[in-house]
Amino acid sequence: MTPEEFRAHGKQVVDWIADYLASVEEHPVRAQVSPGEVRAALPEHPPEQGEPFDAVLADLDRVVLPGITHWQHPSFFAYFPANTSGPAVLGDLLSSGLGVQGMLWATSPACTELETVVVDWLAELLDLPARFRTDERGGGVIQDSASGAAVVAVLAARQRAGEGRHRMYVSSQTHSSLEKAARVTGVGAENVRVVDVDPETLAMDPEHLDRLITEDLAAGFVPMLVCATIGTTSTTAVDPVRRIGEVCRDHGVWLHVDAAYAGVAAVCPEFRWCNDGVAEYADSYVTDPHKWLLTNFDCSVLWLGDRTPMVEALSILPEYLRNAASSSGEVIDYRDWQVPLGRRFRALKLWSVIRWYGAEGLRAHVRRCVELADGFAESVAGDPRFELDPHHPFGLVCFRPLWPEMSVAESDAATTELMERLNDSGELFLSHTRVRGHVVLRLAVGSPATEEKHVEAAWRRIAAEYDAVRDKPRQQR
Amino acid sequence: MTPEEFRAHGKQVVDWIADYLASVEEHPVRAQVSPGEVRAALPEHPPEQGEPFDAVLADLDRVVLPGITHWQHPSFFAYFPANTSGPAVLGDLLSSGLGVQGMLWATSPACTELETVVVDWLAELLDLPARFRTDERGGGVIQDSASGAAVVAVLAARQRAGEGRHRMYVSSQTHSSLEKAARVTGVGAENVRVVDVDPETLAMDPEHLDRLITEDLAAGFVPMLVCATIGTTSTTAVDPVRRIGEVCRDHGVWLHVDAAYAGVAAVCPEFRWCNDGVAEYADSYVTDPHKWLLTNFDCSVLWLGDRTPMVEALSILPEYLRNAASSSGEVIDYRDWQVPLGRRFRALKLWSVIRWYGAEGLRAHVRRCVELADGFAESVAGDPRFELDPHHPFGLVCFRPLWPEMSVAESDAATTELMERLNDSGELFLSHTRVRGHVVLRLAVGSPATEEKHVEAAWRRIAAEYDAVRDKPRQQR
Repeated sequence: MTPEEFRAHGKQVVDWIADYLASVEEHPVRAQVSPGEVRAALPEHPPEQGEPFDAVLADLDRVVLPGITHWQHPSFFAYFPANTSGPAVLGDLLSSGLGVQGMLWATSPACTELETVVVDWLAELLDLPARFRTDERGGGVIQDSASGAAVVAVLAARQRAGEGRHRMYVSSQTHSSLEKAARVTGVGAENVRVVDVDPETLAMDPEHLDRLITEDLAAGFVPMLVCATIGTTSTTAVDPVRRIGEVCRDHGVWLHVDAAYAGVAAVCPEFRWCNDGVAEYADSYVTDPHKWLLTNFDCSVLWLGDRTPMVEALSILPEYLRNAASSSGEVIDYRDWQVPLGRRFRALKLWSVIRWYGAEGLRAHVRRCVELADGFAESVAGDPRFELDPHHPFGLVCFRPLWPEMSVAESDAATTELMERLNDSGELFLSHTRVRGHVVLRLAVGSPATEEKHVEAAWRRIAAEYDAVRDKPRQQR
Repeated sequence: MTPEEFRAHGKQVVDWIADYLASVEEHPVRAQVSPGEVRAALPEHPPEQGEPFDAVLADLDRVVLPGITHWQHPSFFAYFPANTSGPAVLGDLLSSGLGVQGMLWATSPACTELETVVVDWLAELLDLPARFRTDERGGGVIQDSASGAAVVAVLAARQRAGEGRHRMYVSSQTHSSLEKAARVTGVGAENVRVVDVDPETLAMDPEHLDRLITEDLAAGFVPMLVCATIGTTSTTAVDPVRRIGEVCRDHGVWLHVDAAYAGVAAVCPEFRWCNDGVAEYADSYVTDPHKWLLTNFDCSVLWLGDRTPMVEALSILPEYLRNAASSSGEVIDYRDWQVPLGRRFRALKLWSVIRWYGAEGLRAHVRRCVELADGFAESVAGDPRFELDPHHPFGLVCFRPLWPEMSVAESDAATTELMERLNDSGELFLSHTRVRGHVVLRLAVGSPATEEKHVEAAWRRIAAEYDAVRDKPRQQR
């Protein structure tokens, strides 16, 4: 494809995306296809001859779009948001167009140095401690995901802990990526201990953590890493980082803070309470601009207080990658800060986002989402058909329909049926979790496209479908 | 950014990229900046107010471009290529614009099913065995990199091998990502055994492999994985996969084939010899369309003969990800085929590339690169000032300037000086390796923009700089 062909087709694609974004509400939020439907609509064999780009765009409309669950739809309320935004898409487009590979400083200095600048900027925007900045012993780096960041944190912690039978500590509410990291790194799921949570707030119990660590030390294990979460995936519970950090400090254990979803809320001073204790105690901290900060996947930022054990754990230098800049020690080679060798120029999209919105715009986005979520929570709280989980500090609201005269199992089935009816409608998309023995619905507000009218419409639909499920004769369930 | 603002700025960015691609030759190939220069040219603090997108584009020209090493420059001959192409950039742009997250089939069925289709297509294009196809027990999946794929292969192999003191087998020419995978997964670098290579071809010696495995079995170790390479990073040596496979079969060891760079050459029937033995013996196989198949980073395709041990090693299902489609067993959830949970819609770019070029266009690309490399090799072979490495089956040529009357150390220093003069010139960019005790230069042809004139100019410049280095009075070195 020549530059001039690229110019022409590129503008077609930009128009396609602009039209898509302008009309995204016309699509059902959740794809309505059955397993195998998309695959069956595509040719079994690759083309022998090249095809015009129009053919790709035609199939995008014909085959791909019906199989898309529209994460950017204003009524997408499931999971956590995975925001994208115009400046992020354009920053990413620039990255694709430049096509550089930033494995070493020398393979594109701007790719490394712009990343250092933007992660330092983000640390400042979130009021994270100065020791996370790259000009001190620490530093930030963009990872593919909080899962990838967890693997890096575990490896750094293991490097610092030295040999031994390692143990990690999570709560029942910790993201599954920590158990996955334990399995991936060979620590083993059997060495992940589950700390109790407060039954009300679902936050980790630091006293129980202390007891488990003490017990393990006595049994000859090496307590290696504790993961505290700021905004758990299930319900956005916030672990008491300060008190957990004190326990970690007492026993010399690495404290990893998983703030994947909620950490970015700290762009607003009124949400910085959630990071209490991070400045003093966190050895590593991750938050995902690709969730709630308008930056398309993948863009997860991991900071460390001391980058040395990470680099020791991950650095290998074959001859063909040796170069004067690396040998000088004056530059960062981010390949030693991650599992893969190759790296995309991901800093461009975060840079575009921060510049386009500015600190003010980012704060306004977070505040608007929280306000909309609070409004929804008020509606739920005022309706006797539902029970609201009163802990909803960010953009996620958990709530439960109440089903009089039903057993727990029947209630759960009815709640699930309600959710599936809602999701099948295509009008909105919710997900669920299980809290204190009940299936609970989750409504997460995060898209820049979501307005009050979408949240209100969601609430009306939920209430209406509740009535429909409740009034349905029991034998039809 | 509204859809209409996106439309306007998107077209600006497309123009910027088209202009960049059209004028890429005007830039020095390798960035000429010093450490810290890019960083110093950027504001220390993030902006409080949002800025117009034009400001981002202006800084792209002013600050970022001078710090870019232009991987898409036709005279970029370093490392391995990291191709991009118009259809790849546009496919990736569509992915950013749609902004979907394909962790589960249910979170965007088309993201999963299109991936299944295109990796099956690619298997067909490369004539890989039917058992790698997803409709049998195996399957393909797009990973971030061959490094990430190596981690997955090690985890699957460990799962199949069961408990024990695991050992892995590589050669001195195997990519460093295998040692990194051993460290990441906790197998440990000390359990990676290095198999001898043929001193001439640098291919792994299967008899030595057999002896090492036999020795380890006798000592109570569990031989777990052998990595054979098709096209090593240093010199594109090709390990004898068939004979290695027989050894693996005899001892029940997982055979991982790393064909990251060279595997895609098999789009051409005349290069399929390199995959001899893969069909019968490989348990996993990886090749990178983001290296030599016109698809921008990241797009590494991993296939497995049996996906079960991988899924067993990587699957965790928390409540909030449970859904009817996953429970039915009728769908693939690719999150269980990789370390991260989240996934970008990367299939779109590979789909765009295969459709735009067709099998014919992909073959023409590979053939053209190999022809250009062969032409360069002929020039080297005909010049007594240089020694050609006669093994250059693909697009990489290794060669060594000869420095009469110099010791090995002096020769290496002179070769390095020659390379740095070339790279400092901005006219071309080469990298080096070390083979049989000597520093050796590497010239890799891979960019779709590279023409005969670029390779010829590179050769002229290399020869001229050789003379300059040779004729320089010795004390100035």
